[in-house]
Amino acid sequence: DACRKFDIGIGRFAQGKYNAITDVEGVKVGHVTQVRDDVPAPDESGKTTSVRTGVTAIVPEFGDIFNNHLPSGGFILNGIGEMSGLTQAMEWGWLETPILLTNTMSVGAVHSGIIRHMIDRHPELGRKVDVIIPVVAETSDAFLNDVRVFSNTPEHALEAIRKAVGGEVEQGSVGAGTGLISFDFSGGIGSSSRRLPAEGSGYTVGVLVQSNFGRMRNLTVDGAVVGRELDPLFPYDQRRGISYGSVIVVVATNAPLLSAQLNRLAKRAALGLGRVGSYAATTSGEIIFAFSTANRTTREAKESPDLLSLDFVGDRVVNLLYEAVIEATEEAVLNAMFYSAGMSGRKGRYAPPIPRELVREILAAAKAGRVKAENG
Amino acid sequence: DACRKFDIGIGRFAQGKYNAITDVEGVKVGHVTQVRDDVPAPDESGKTTSVRTGVTAIVPEFGDIFNNHLPSGGFILNGIGEMSGLTQAMEWGWLETPILLTNTMSVGAVHSGIIRHMIDRHPELGRKVDVIIPVVAETSDAFLNDVRVFSNTPEHALEAIRKAVGGEVEQGSVGAGTGLISFDFSGGIGSSSRRLPAEGSGYTVGVLVQSNFGRMRNLTVDGAVVGRELDPLFPYDQRRGISYGSVIVVVATNAPLLSAQLNRLAKRAALGLGRVGSYAATTSGEIIFAFSTANRTTREAKESPDLLSLDFVGDRVVNLLYEAVIEATEEAVLNAMFYSAGMSGRKGRYAPPIPRELVREILAAAKAGRVKAENG
Amino acid sequence: DACRKFDIGIGRFAQGKYNAITDVEGVKVGHVTQVRDDVPAPDESGKTTSVRTGVTAIVPEFGDIFNNHLPSGGFILNGIGEMSGLTQAMEWGWLETPILLTNTMSVGAVHSGIIRHMIDRHPELGRKVDVIIPVVAETSDAFLNDVRVFSNTPEHALEAIRKAVGGEVEQGSVGAGTGLISFDFSGGIGSSSRRLPAEGSGYTVGVLVQSNFGRMRNLTVDGAVVGRELDPLFPYDQRRGISYGSVIVVVATNAPLLSAQLNRLAKRAALGLGRVGSYAATTSGEIIFAFSTANRTTREAKESPDLLSLDFVGDRVVNLLYEAVIEATEEAVLNAMFYSAGMSGRKGRYAPPIPRELVREILAAAKAGRVKAENG
Amino acid sequence: DACRKFDIGIGRFAQGKYNAITDVEGVKVGHVTQVRDDVPAPDESGKTTSVRTGVTAIVPEFGDIFNNHLPSGGFILNGIGEMSGLTQAMEWGWLETPILLTNTMSVGAVHSGIIRHMIDRHPELGRKVDVIIPVVAETSDAFLNDVRVFSNTPEHALEAIRKAVGGEVEQGSVGAGTGLISFDFSGGIGSSSRRLPAEGSGYTVGVLVQSNFGRMRNLTVDGAVVGRELDPLFPYDQRRGISYGSVIVVVATNAPLLSAQLNRLAKRAALGLGRVGSYAATTSGEIIFAFSTANRTTREAKESPDLLSLDFVGDRVVNLLYEAVIEATEEAVLNAMFYSAGMSGRKGRYAPPIPRELVREILAAAKAGRVKAENG
Repeated sequence: DACRKFDIGIGRFAQGKYNAITDVEGVKVGHVTQVRDDVPAPDESGKTTSVRTGVTAIVPEFGDIFNNHLPSGGFILNGIGEMSGLTQAMEWGWLETPILLTNTMSVGAVHSGIIRHMIDRHPELGRKVDVIIPVVAETSDAFLNDVRVFSNTPEHALEAIRKAVGGEVEQGSVGAGTGLISFDFSGGIGSSSRRLPAEGSGYTVGVLVQSNFGRMRNLTVDGAVVGRELDPLFPYDQRRGISYGSVIVVVATNAPLLSAQLNRLAKRAALGLGRVGSYAATTSGEIIFAFSTANRTTREAKESPDLLSLDFVGDRVVNLLYEAVIEATEEAVLNAMFYSAGMSGRKGRYAPPIPRELVREILAAAKAGRVKAENG
Repeated sequence: DACRKFDIGIGRFAQGKYNAITDVEGVKVGHVTQVRDDVPAPDESGKTTSVRTGVTAIVPEFGDIFNNHLPSGGFILNGIGEMSGLTQAMEWGWLETPILLTNTMSVGAVHSGIIRHMIDRHPELGRKVDVIIPVVAETSDAFLNDVRVFSNTPEHALEAIRKAVGGEVEQGSVGAGTGLISFDFSGGIGSSSRRLPAEGSGYTVGVLVQSNFGRMRNLTVDGAVVGRELDPLFPYDQRRGISYGSVIVVVATNAPLLSAQLNRLAKRAALGLGRVGSYAATTSGEIIFAFSTANRTTREAKESPDLLSLDFVGDRVVNLLYEAVIEATEEAVLNAMFYSAGMSGRKGRYAPPIPRELVREILAAAKAGRVKAENG
Repeated sequence: DACRKFDIGIGRFAQGKYNAITDVEGVKVGHVTQVRDDVPAPDESGKTTSVRTGVTAIVPEFGDIFNNHLPSGGFILNGIGEMSGLTQAMEWGWLETPILLTNTMSVGAVHSGIIRHMIDRHPELGRKVDVIIPVVAETSDAFLNDVRVFSNTPEHALEAIRKAVGGEVEQGSVGAGTGLISFDFSGGIGSSSRRLPAEGSGYTVGVLVQSNFGRMRNLTVDGAVVGRELDPLFPYDQRRGISYGSVIVVVATNAPLLSAQLNRLAKRAALGLGRVGSYAATTSGEIIFAFSTANRTTREAKESPDLLSLDFVGDRVVNLLYEAVIEATEEAVLNAMFYSAGMSGRKGRYAPPIPRELVREILAAAKAGRVKAENG
Repeated sequence: DACRKFDIGIGRFAQGKYNAITDVEGVKVGHVTQVRDDVPAPDESGKTTSVRTGVTAIVPEFGDIFNNHLPSGGFILNGIGEMSGLTQAMEWGWLETPILLTNTMSVGAVHSGIIRHMIDRHPELGRKVDVIIPVVAETSDAFLNDVRVFSNTPEHALEAIRKAVGGEVEQGSVGAGTGLISFDFSGGIGSSSRRLPAEGSGYTVGVLVQSNFGRMRNLTVDGAVVGRELDPLFPYDQRRGISYGSVIVVVATNAPLLSAQLNRLAKRAALGLGRVGSYAATTSGEIIFAFSTANRTTREAKESPDLLSLDFVGDRVVNLLYEAVIEATEEAVLNAMFYSAGMSGRKGRYAPPIPRELVREILAAAKAGRVKAENG
């Protein structure tokens, strides 16, 4: 994976096989990526414009999530953003649809796409079962993408769901991260995972971020605020102005957790955002969603007058999960940048890729210095 | 208005001129109502089905809300529902779009409609200004309406916004309330208003509800749990089963309030729902949005490094606003029923209108009894 | 019990044997009541002053709550008040001490008393186990009581815990309710319970309130705003001014619930406060604590790396519990008044008892009228 | 100051004159420190035990805070702790008493002390004005201190308030931090401040922490996880076991902010805790209180029916405040350790001081390496 290739080890826990959210068994990811120039401008001026956008689907596909709900929760670090379905996840505590990511202006279109997907698969929806509430989250790609073109449609949502697979996760400037910018570098979709040691029963935590936040000067990579050194090396005139962006974090785990525990796990992912350099800017949308693939519960069971029963892990394992989700969130944001090769956009804008070699060298030198000092 | 016609006076404050949310100056309401039978069933069976749905727009139209934000806030009584934009309203504290209501499955379509409305009116959106986050809320009309038909489109959202006017508000089985059911009676859209007395500086509070909740036996009308007496008079087999529905409340006021005060005002609207008979059922979405038409603030001002300044009312007036919003919420829910003449729906279902005369008689007799006892 | 004696039946569920929180098996209540005149004034003026205060303990005594925690939760309707330990109950989800009620200025003294009680009983506290966080809540009795006397001490807390018993609960102007006023009538401690029908598995919900809120004109009994009729009958000059008071609600149940479910149950108790006439005044402290006597879990279990498991009731039973807690809260507030015989206080003040006979007549006459109208 | 002495510069903003919360004009700090051995054990065994505890007072002393309230807010990162008055600060939004810190078991005693302080100074309290709700927060010093001795009394609270002064703040193992441990090193009270640059109007943010959290391996200084290198150098058998502790953060600023903005500022302090190595352990109490010395408002004004008016800074300055509070929180935690010279305690326990020289060398070497890599 991107970070491992560059010898950036975040934290103390082992990564999963793919270092991605797909290391949580049953979780699949699919992207639709749109990179088009020469698109007729929507203002009928005859000029052309550029599209840099897309949709990403996270599909926790265990047979039938509509009828087998997964415990879910969330946390809002700063709420100037949108995640439909979050209210339900935090109150009701169950996930019943795929989770889709897209740009801010396309939340409605993607929402309609999920509805259509669910209606197609579940004839009882709208009949025996009233409704479902989809989970759609967003960040804005308006710096590189012409959002007035309305490029994302309900069909793209269906396509992203259809394309979802396990295993390796495509990252960087792809899917809902196509036109995004992190710490003034290109890249939006990143993922990472951690596997707890034996004392944590070997549970896995996977994270996928749609990252669109951060000022270069604050970029912190386990070991150093490298952004302070990178900041003077890159021109300012191509950076975003006062909008310091947003980030969506999706956390998956196979550890059995209650909804309230997932709310708290989501809160720790926010600490991971802080570690990598977020100060949760006042106009940002930094929102976390978390679900557990354990404790699947049928729709019928919850309406039963009889007792339900759920297992859940105790405080000692929860603490390990907290550390793990911080590490994985931090690394997922870095991966969003490390996987991207740079991205051009509308109005001749260009977001450069993070200078991987330089970062690698800075960190290696810092580490060498530290070890030498400690042994001296 | 409906309730006044039937001598049901809720509370102690005076109603505004229209007894509606439009009594708050500058607030307009528009509906698109869809009542169609003989609609081809979406399952290609050759059968027909019925559509009972719509869209309602609340437009706080002071020139240009996109560039002149209104303080806003909200409260979630029970969160198994959706209100896009609520997170932003509670965190950021500002409203920048119209507020639209529709059915659960149409949130995406209506969301797309608002985006299009804003893009059309504001060429700088997606260019100089990144994005807006629309406010769309929902309840489910799946009991009477065939939601698989996807009747509400982005165009319906645009139409509802276009139709928005001040003055009298059409209520009952109209707009987003067309297919809704309240306390086992027909009717979904209701509105009411209160005007504070001189000690409250004459401020107005207006409420509009999209009501879809309640079991008949719990219906309480200022003076009595009339539902207990109505309940045995109506057959059970035509009522909804375990789904006790949801309700969206939109509160408007011209009193100058801060966002945090509006969050708290929204919480009192929840007490009004409780007074009329809600127990906030475990799977309901009972969500309140509140905004103030005072304290309009320009987009630019908020980004300024200089000081902003806002006026707001002190505790004594806030307490009066609390009482007023409880009264108006209670009466708005009653109006949703009193304005409806009954509604048929899919599969031969029928929601009867509330028996207005009987309710009137029960309340009058109760009142007469009380007065007699007190004077005896 | 007080309400039943006066034929005031709130709601549709049956009361428990004692119509009190003690109907939840294992829950005990104890009071220390202080009514003293001729107390030397603390200002050394040589004058005398009056004390009307006390402490109430709710002791969920199943052997050893310190080592066997009970699931707990809470809700803040309005937060201008104090309940120590609430944060822990809502985050951690467990109760590990008795719950004590007193006046605002005595929270510290009673807090110290609980600490001493726990230290005395548990030699491992402060050694093997670090600390405990007591639950102490308050309302202000400063209208009738001279709070400058500091009448409540740690010893009174210990005494209230020691006196705690099951069975009948003393109510009205006793314990922490001695100097309190509800809807401008005397009385502070009230209790009530509901037993679910067979479809709700016979679970019990018990409520105890420390009531100190409400304006007479808003008093509502079972839907009827009797306060409107009582209000002109009582002089205004002996009522409290702008302080509309506070209320603490403690909810107990033997239904197995998770902490998150108890948070939501607590929220419904707030709807019960609204039904009896609260508008959650801007400076009030209206805070609810809830716990379940099922799902006792040992201190050790929670630290285990192994799985814990809890049973909990599904949505259908939860909805019945919601209705039941609203009914019991409403009736507990009424009991706080109905059990009191009036209370004098400092500076010659006097809070009259609620006119029970008149209320009974008003309600009976109203009911007779309603029934006649319905049958007519 | 401690950190500056060791060349540890956290972040990009300048420190205030004292690098302490007292850089916010009018804010004073006072400590009472108790370090005693040969204390008779409370179990009457005839043995002796050790006391390592105390009280710290933060006094925002502008004439009369009782009658001139300061806007306040807060945030709970993890809630297994106690801060009385927090509920009021977040709901009501005003501070009206000093803020006191102590150990968990002494919250009640210190609470009583503040009450007495307020009663003594304000004869109208309990008469014309009902009550006040003190702010008392805690962490547990039970590892080094014998909490069964009950060393902190109401008088100690009064003494700490009396001793409060501006200027230099005593830090490390003093006051409420006497017996505390941070990242397995001694030290509990730390403070730091930041002054915004001209674009931020020169506002000051000051932080004082009562730090009792962290595992050595997670200690992170300005991005560098130095704890990973320190961890193997110190023995494990003298460290705390499963209790990873708690931390209280008090934030003061002279920037005019609304209560809701202070809630959000408090949330960013939590990100600062994350940056220094907190993962918000499941049983920790990590609670933040924030107040602004601007926008003082009289008690009377708030009850007025007329309009109040408050100034507050816009988004651009708020973002600078966010960065500043993260920096100051991080540095305050470091100062808590850097100022301490180590602390012995009960049962022969000993918490070593952080090895300042080694940390300095590690950071200097790392920095030299980074700079070399960047220039190479």
